[in-house]
Amino acid sequence: MNTSTADIDEVADIDTDVVQNYIDRLSRWGLWGPEDQLGALNLVTGKHVAAAAAGVKAGKVISLTLPYDQAGPQPGGLRNNPILMTTATGTDAAAGTQAASIRAVFGENGTHVGYADDAIFMPTQSGTQWDSLAHVFRDGQMWNGYPATDHSSAGAARNGIQHWTDRLVLRGVLADVARYKGVDALEPGYAISVDDLLGTLAAQHCTVGTGDALLVRTGQLGQRRGQWGDFAGGAAPGLSVHAAPWLASTEIVAVVTDTWGVEVRPNEVDDFQPLHQIAIVHLGLAFGEIFDLDALAADCAEDGRYQFMFAASPLPITGAVGSPVGAVAIK
Amino acid sequence: MNTSTADIDEVADIDTDVVQNYIDRLSRWGLWGPEDQLGALNLVTGKHVAAAAAGVKAGKVISLTLPYDQAGPQPGGLRNNPILMTTATGTDAAAGTQAASIRAVFGENGTHVGYADDAIFMPTQSGTQWDSLAHVFRDGQMWNGYPATDHSSAGAARNGIQHWTDRLVLRGVLADVARYKGVDALEPGYAISVDDLLGTLAAQHCTVGTGDALLVRTGQLGQRRGQWGDFAGGAAPGLSVHAAPWLASTEIVAVVTDTWGVEVRPNEVDDFQPLHQIAIVHLGLAFGEIFDLDALAADCAEDGRYQFMFAASPLPITGAVGSPVGAVAIK
Amino acid sequence: MNTSTADIDEVADIDTDVVQNYIDRLSRWGLWGPEDQLGALNLVTGKHVAAAAAGVKAGKVISLTLPYDQAGPQPGGLRNNPILMTTATGTDAAAGTQAASIRAVFGENGTHVGYADDAIFMPTQSGTQWDSLAHVFRDGQMWNGYPATDHSSAGAARNGIQHWTDRLVLRGVLADVARYKGVDALEPGYAISVDDLLGTLAAQHCTVGTGDALLVRTGQLGQRRGQWGDFAGGAAPGLSVHAAPWLASTEIVAVVTDTWGVEVRPNEVDDFQPLHQIAIVHLGLAFGEIFDLDALAADCAEDGRYQFMFAASPLPITGAVGSPVGAVAIK
Amino acid sequence: MNTSTADIDEVADIDTDVVQNYIDRLSRWGLWGPEDQLGALNLVTGKHVAAAAAGVKAGKVISLTLPYDQAGPQPGGLRNNPILMTTATGTDAAAGTQAASIRAVFGENGTHVGYADDAIFMPTQSGTQWDSLAHVFRDGQMWNGYPATDHSSAGAARNGIQHWTDRLVLRGVLADVARYKGVDALEPGYAISVDDLLGTLAAQHCTVGTGDALLVRTGQLGQRRGQWGDFAGGAAPGLSVHAAPWLASTEIVAVVTDTWGVEVRPNEVDDFQPLHQIAIVHLGLAFGEIFDLDALAADCAEDGRYQFMFAASPLPITGAVGSPVGAVAIK
Repeated sequence: MNTSTADIDEVADIDTDVVQNYIDRLSRWGLWGPEDQLGALNLVTGKHVAAAAAGVKAGKVISLTLPYDQAGPQPGGLRNNPILMTTATGTDAAAGTQAASIRAVFGENGTHVGYADDAIFMPTQSGTQWDSLAHVFRDGQMWNGYPATDHSSAGAARNGIQHWTDRLVLRGVLADVARYKGVDALEPGYAISVDDLLGTLAAQHCTVGTGDALLVRTGQLGQRRGQWGDFAGGAAPGLSVHAAPWLASTEIVAVVTDTWGVEVRPNEVDDFQPLHQIAIVHLGLAFGEIFDLDALAADCAEDGRYQFMFAASPLPITGAVGSPVGAVAIK
Repeated sequence: MNTSTADIDEVADIDTDVVQNYIDRLSRWGLWGPEDQLGALNLVTGKHVAAAAAGVKAGKVISLTLPYDQAGPQPGGLRNNPILMTTATGTDAAAGTQAASIRAVFGENGTHVGYADDAIFMPTQSGTQWDSLAHVFRDGQMWNGYPATDHSSAGAARNGIQHWTDRLVLRGVLADVARYKGVDALEPGYAISVDDLLGTLAAQHCTVGTGDALLVRTGQLGQRRGQWGDFAGGAAPGLSVHAAPWLASTEIVAVVTDTWGVEVRPNEVDDFQPLHQIAIVHLGLAFGEIFDLDALAADCAEDGRYQFMFAASPLPITGAVGSPVGAVAIK
Repeated sequence: MNTSTADIDEVADIDTDVVQNYIDRLSRWGLWGPEDQLGALNLVTGKHVAAAAAGVKAGKVISLTLPYDQAGPQPGGLRNNPILMTTATGTDAAAGTQAASIRAVFGENGTHVGYADDAIFMPTQSGTQWDSLAHVFRDGQMWNGYPATDHSSAGAARNGIQHWTDRLVLRGVLADVARYKGVDALEPGYAISVDDLLGTLAAQHCTVGTGDALLVRTGQLGQRRGQWGDFAGGAAPGLSVHAAPWLASTEIVAVVTDTWGVEVRPNEVDDFQPLHQIAIVHLGLAFGEIFDLDALAADCAEDGRYQFMFAASPLPITGAVGSPVGAVAIK
Repeated sequence: MNTSTADIDEVADIDTDVVQNYIDRLSRWGLWGPEDQLGALNLVTGKHVAAAAAGVKAGKVISLTLPYDQAGPQPGGLRNNPILMTTATGTDAAAGTQAASIRAVFGENGTHVGYADDAIFMPTQSGTQWDSLAHVFRDGQMWNGYPATDHSSAGAARNGIQHWTDRLVLRGVLADVARYKGVDALEPGYAISVDDLLGTLAAQHCTVGTGDALLVRTGQLGQRRGQWGDFAGGAAPGLSVHAAPWLASTEIVAVVTDTWGVEVRPNEVDDFQPLHQIAIVHLGLAFGEIFDLDALAADCAEDGRYQFMFAASPLPITGAVGSPVGAVAIK
């Protein structure tokens, strides 16, 4: 391709314009006051929560979380898979090495008891996880206009994940785009359009609206399960940046996918993760990534009901920019 | 005290008899088959879950999880408070040090974007947490009779916490014993009796039954908040070992407290944590510890409703003997 | 004390002048070229190393490193004591749980063998440790004038500890100031003057010079051993900021103490750790902290020889700002 | 191959006999008393240390340690490469986020100062490392006959690495077998025989004896550097199990290689790591693994001197079964 530097600059400008234009039209900074740290989750009211609960019929609970272990999707490196380390074991108990420490700590004999204990080391975003509103910046700012420097080595002074720990109980709607398209998995690089989403929802006879979480199944996680390759960080199907206005107008509060990054990779414009910049930084949406939606999708296909109560409270890790989560759909 | 060795042995025998007698009468090993790894949570059916959801009225969501951070209750040492470490910061973004790595990893300019990332190191039982059925052994065995050596440095080959990730959505009932007793907090060493529990429930005009989680508020967590002292590991109010038969007969599936160890410390008999040995090892109960029940208690006192939907899915950390949890009560 | 704001500002200015004046007179930035990342350790030549080795007579090896474990000096918190976690244990081997994994990984029976393995989590500066030249900044710059932003979440792009891994074999000289002063330990807040150092060295019949490491014993570590209190981070005896010109003129390359921070705390001027700012940032000195000098001091007192070969290579942890070290004196 | 079970058992018996026969002839258990935790390093006397120092001529210091970072040889998984995490950064300092914490902790302004800090998480055996005498068991016992259960989740009650922190300063002799054989690297599976070692030493005009460390260069580390493949854990050249009697008779105290496991892989007999079982468990030798011997080898080839002072003190991590090390050769 014969592209001069001038051409590249022009392309970049156009792309920037696209993203910046969406932001100029859609940004919600200040909408919930200058001190807000909740973002779109402000839209979820008790009425929404109660309605989500009221939709529960059979009392089925379906896990949406991938196991946290060494078989996880990370290829190694700094965002490694979770490392569980035992600090007391049943084998210790069997060998009789615990009695002395029980005596030392508690001054008791403890002749019958034994115990196991452990610790975990994990990147907060190594598996099924929520991004906090402090995870992404655009032009040096995070959600609601706070400076990026509100996040330092001491963690997030604002927009930390802990603010959401009682906010992620709401109605969820699954859009099984892979099934709608008749494929096991959408191709890496496939940008899911608003038409795709609307078509999927229509085919499923459901809608989304204010206060809902939209769970979008691409099929990629299931396809790569156990043989992850570049699943975490590589090319992936995902939402188009051009879905931004629709995400804003529907007043959806959370978008969840079975990919590592919600949006399509490679990106459609010449900037890294533009939908993150619009949706997290300016709409205040909760992005949920690496959710395992296969069991839920199978269940929805069977009973034809694609909406459910969605309970996915992040751990209140003070100042964290992400959190693992024991997420469940309740039908 | 002039106690001969013979006397001590006699006392130990008596105590052992008490615990062993309860076990002989109450043990549920084999009840759900020789391969069961769920324990009492087998008792929760879809009907129970649906009923719990049906009880939701206002759509209020109340967090029951203490923040995971350095202000937590651990005194230091091996079961230290959670350590959050940032691996990318907003200050990096502001300083312009991220552009090169985005280019290196993704081959893109990323001129507008910045990001933060982090990792956590934490003992699974350092804060609000579920004990798995592999956490405690009696005489070399864990729940359902599996040998303690099924837990090794490789984690729990059986009874790991991951089995419960879709099982802890159920009806919760708060027994605010501290309020019932008219104190801010029960004294360390106070053994909560079945009469205390029944009295509290009666005063609250509620009952517990099959498939319920019982949340017992002693007030200790609130009293020690921020000035923890020996909260984690020290003397504490808690359930009497003699509550074991009642826990079995009510078919409660989970017991949660605002203390570090559910049962009273020091223990009432000459063995370490006897109720753990009976209730976890032989009844297969889920024990939830260091739950923050104060906001829930205040809400229940206000509206007079002490039952709620309880969503507290542990992280499916494969082979772990405990898990942090983003627990919520939904009313 | 009746001090007006104006007075405080004046004091601050004076103090700043003191520190800045030392820097203006003494700074070595650029002395070893604009790309240097070694600092004063450039002064150690093969001749110095050979002379240090030539001084070895009896072949005695004395450890200067405090054990890395939970009994260490840190009070908890983020700079916690080292946490060792086992990932395979002898108790596992005894219980027979390892055979399967040996078979799985190596395809062999391994009927006789067993193994233990472990991992460590530790702040690099939690115990006996070297500060790298990237550890401290003054006015946004580190050693040799590199910007502070050369250190980010990705570690130190310049002045990382790895550059010194083959540089810390040299002649060491112990100045046992506590012994010279006839006390078990100097008082917290005691500023060790050049006169104190010269008096100590004279009494010991030794001198320091180009390429030497000066190990200064205050006695504080020994006094606090096992009952650390605020040892790590609190008030401490240590070098006076006014020793800076002497440190520069002697061409000493490393200063090591049995305290947490080399210099006296509280500081003598109204700025935090001014000697760090002068000696690390502008002289390029290696600061060694929390070294255990008691056994060495006892040996020196016995044989009257206060100089020795000092082998204290930091781990080459790429980009780290400090490193634990297995430090030894060889006499 | 048509091998009956009877045949396999016979082979296993023969192999076991080989290993057990060596042990029966060579074991040093009890040689230094029933409480010994040092093993062969008892053989190093002050005379040996002094002689090693006396051999230093030019004062050259050569690092033998591979950098500890994400570019290390581990393929991921539980024995991952070292993870350095920053807990304070220069970018924080530049952004002005540190002033408040200095004020909070130290009550001072700290207007000029900035700082960086970090923590490391690493398996003790992920890179250049010493095995302790608690690392390997044979038939449920470790060095000197202690039971394997002396190592539990609490670490090594006996034979922990800390006992060697002042013991690994001695004379080193490099046997550059790859160079002797005229190859870049010996092939995986190549068993280095005593003849190979003697031939190499003779060609180098040097010998080994009591109290020496023998550093054996296979060339494999250099060949795999940066493209590690299965370097850590895979097939490798290494010492033959049949070198055991020679290792015993020479009274060498440490064996170091540029491979992950000193001995040849796959093993020559039907048991996992038989030389570990003989040399660590029964001879009490120090095994050093993943040492980078290339720079040293180049230097030795140039000056023709293959012996040197070897300073490689492990960190005294209490109860650890291995330790990273800042190892140097001093010539």
